[in-house]
Amino acid sequence: MQLTEIYAPIQKDLAIVEDRIKSTGSGEAPWLGDLLTHALKGGGKRLRPALVLLSASFYDYNLERLMPMARAVEIMHLATLVHDDTIDNSFVRWGRPTVNKIWGMEKAVLLGDYLFAKAGDLTASTENLRVIKLLPQTLMIITNGELAQSASAFQLGQSREQYIFRISSKTAALFVMAVESGAVLSNAPEKSIQILHDYGYYLGHAFQIIDDILDFTGTEEEMGKPVGGDLAQGTVTLPTLMLMEKYPQDNPVKKMFEGGDKQKYVRETIEMVRNSTIIAECFNVANEYCDKACRNLKSLPEKGPRASLTGLADYIVSRRR
Amino acid sequence: MQLTEIYAPIQKDLAIVEDRIKSTGSGEAPWLGDLLTHALKGGGKRLRPALVLLSASFYDYNLERLMPMARAVEIMHLATLVHDDTIDNSFVRWGRPTVNKIWGMEKAVLLGDYLFAKAGDLTASTENLRVIKLLPQTLMIITNGELAQSASAFQLGQSREQYIFRISSKTAALFVMAVESGAVLSNAPEKSIQILHDYGYYLGHAFQIIDDILDFTGTEEEMGKPVGGDLAQGTVTLPTLMLMEKYPQDNPVKKMFEGGDKQKYVRETIEMVRNSTIIAECFNVANEYCDKACRNLKSLPEKGPRASLTGLADYIVSRRR
Repeated sequence: MQLTEIYAPIQKDLAIVEDRIKSTGSGEAPWLGDLLTHALKGGGKRLRPALVLLSASFYDYNLERLMPMARAVEIMHLATLVHDDTIDNSFVRWGRPTVNKIWGMEKAVLLGDYLFAKAGDLTASTENLRVIKLLPQTLMIITNGELAQSASAFQLGQSREQYIFRISSKTAALFVMAVESGAVLSNAPEKSIQILHDYGYYLGHAFQIIDDILDFTGTEEEMGKPVGGDLAQGTVTLPTLMLMEKYPQDNPVKKMFEGGDKQKYVRETIEMVRNSTIIAECFNVANEYCDKACRNLKSLPEKGPRASLTGLADYIVSRRR
Repeated sequence: MQLTEIYAPIQKDLAIVEDRIKSTGSGEAPWLGDLLTHALKGGGKRLRPALVLLSASFYDYNLERLMPMARAVEIMHLATLVHDDTIDNSFVRWGRPTVNKIWGMEKAVLLGDYLFAKAGDLTASTENLRVIKLLPQTLMIITNGELAQSASAFQLGQSREQYIFRISSKTAALFVMAVESGAVLSNAPEKSIQILHDYGYYLGHAFQIIDDILDFTGTEEEMGKPVGGDLAQGTVTLPTLMLMEKYPQDNPVKKMFEGGDKQKYVRETIEMVRNSTIIAECFNVANEYCDKACRNLKSLPEKGPRASLTGLADYIVSRRR
């Protein structure tokens, strides 16, 4: 399934959400509005707002009630990216210069803060306490995961459990927030909320594993940003972990983390991962998470969005960027 | 009035709040807990939690109901300081090394994000929608003010209106959040909420003007951080504005902003400000804001906390750090 086909049941509404996201900065003073316009222009797939709308499509769907959350999840996502790019000193995303590249670190940190606040403001406007509580809890989980990642950078001897904890925190949590808020705001019964919660949770894991694969197999052109970036930052992802598991005594990651030539050993690691069964094994792990994500969807009402959710899971593991 | 006397009506409860703030990081993983412990240790005057408790003292005061907000306003304040110190590359606050000094920029940005989320989580736990909406709106105002400040750095031709807008945003807004949430959570009548709102609003202006004065008149020992820092960052505060108003054609600020030797002209500016009537004039402005802050307090119930609020206003304009 193509993304347009997956999004079909919500396509019209998603376009409205997109417009509303993009116009967030209009009417603001130039020192804020210019930054907002750039940061919210997108280039991503608007996956998270789509998840809000799709998850709400099984019960009492009301766009006006969903709108604040559809905007909030994307704005919160973009806020984390603005801060990530600042922290990592990354200059390109979606083939465009980052906020920190154009305006510098100071404005990028403040813009991220503003976007978190804006997401909170939109969420508060739902006046739904359950959804309102989700946002700060999700941001705490994400940040905790990113601090864990930062603390584990360039550390040998990491386990798969640590990796799964990190991707669960930094990626799956926001997927959960998207599907759970859609479900709650459409007055879904508790059992369906749980099914959608699990869908978002496991889909988020699969999504991040694919992201981590693409950082080894993608091209800069496909990704809209440099590849091999994770390892260069010292971040151990699944392909790297598997390489270290296969060659515990002698591998380029170990040499690099022990102080060896970074560029050389990043190149060697990418080469070794590509010329092994590791990528295929990583895809297997991602597919397992996709299966887990979808296994209870059949208990949801039989409607078009159900095919979209399974289609989205398939899309996520087959995507090239 | 000494601060201990001002805090007397709430002293015992404020100590409990203080304990709860400090123990926020306990039970967290070390990569997060260590940062939280350092950042929340304090050194400040816990003015904002005190304002929550004092504002709630006129009507239906209930510590358990106030506790989340008393913690949230301080945690949000500390979050903005963590990000400010990171942005400004400041290494010392309250005579202690900053988070960015010890752990670096990356962890400081993430810790600030976590603290914002924690403040949101505490606020959400009040389940009071009015108070819940205050937090993101306040953070948007603060960040907008800081972005305005950043955009105006090293710019000549600034007006007093611009300065007042900035201090209103970056300082007074959080004072308002503290007093308003205390008033709302104590079920104060709307008229009293407005009186306390105005108190916080104008007191915040006075507080920041004094802060800006102290950056010219204080010593590093008193302040626990280097002085003259605002101007070195290109930030135009009231004393600088007055100097430029007095000597529009020829002043060291103009020379510096036009590219002259920074250290030399910062020193000259401090010297000129100290040896003029500017400091006295700034105090007059601060006192006017204090008067505005207190002018309607007499309409609140005649209780001990009323004297504390006026005492606090006096304390704020006479403080040395």
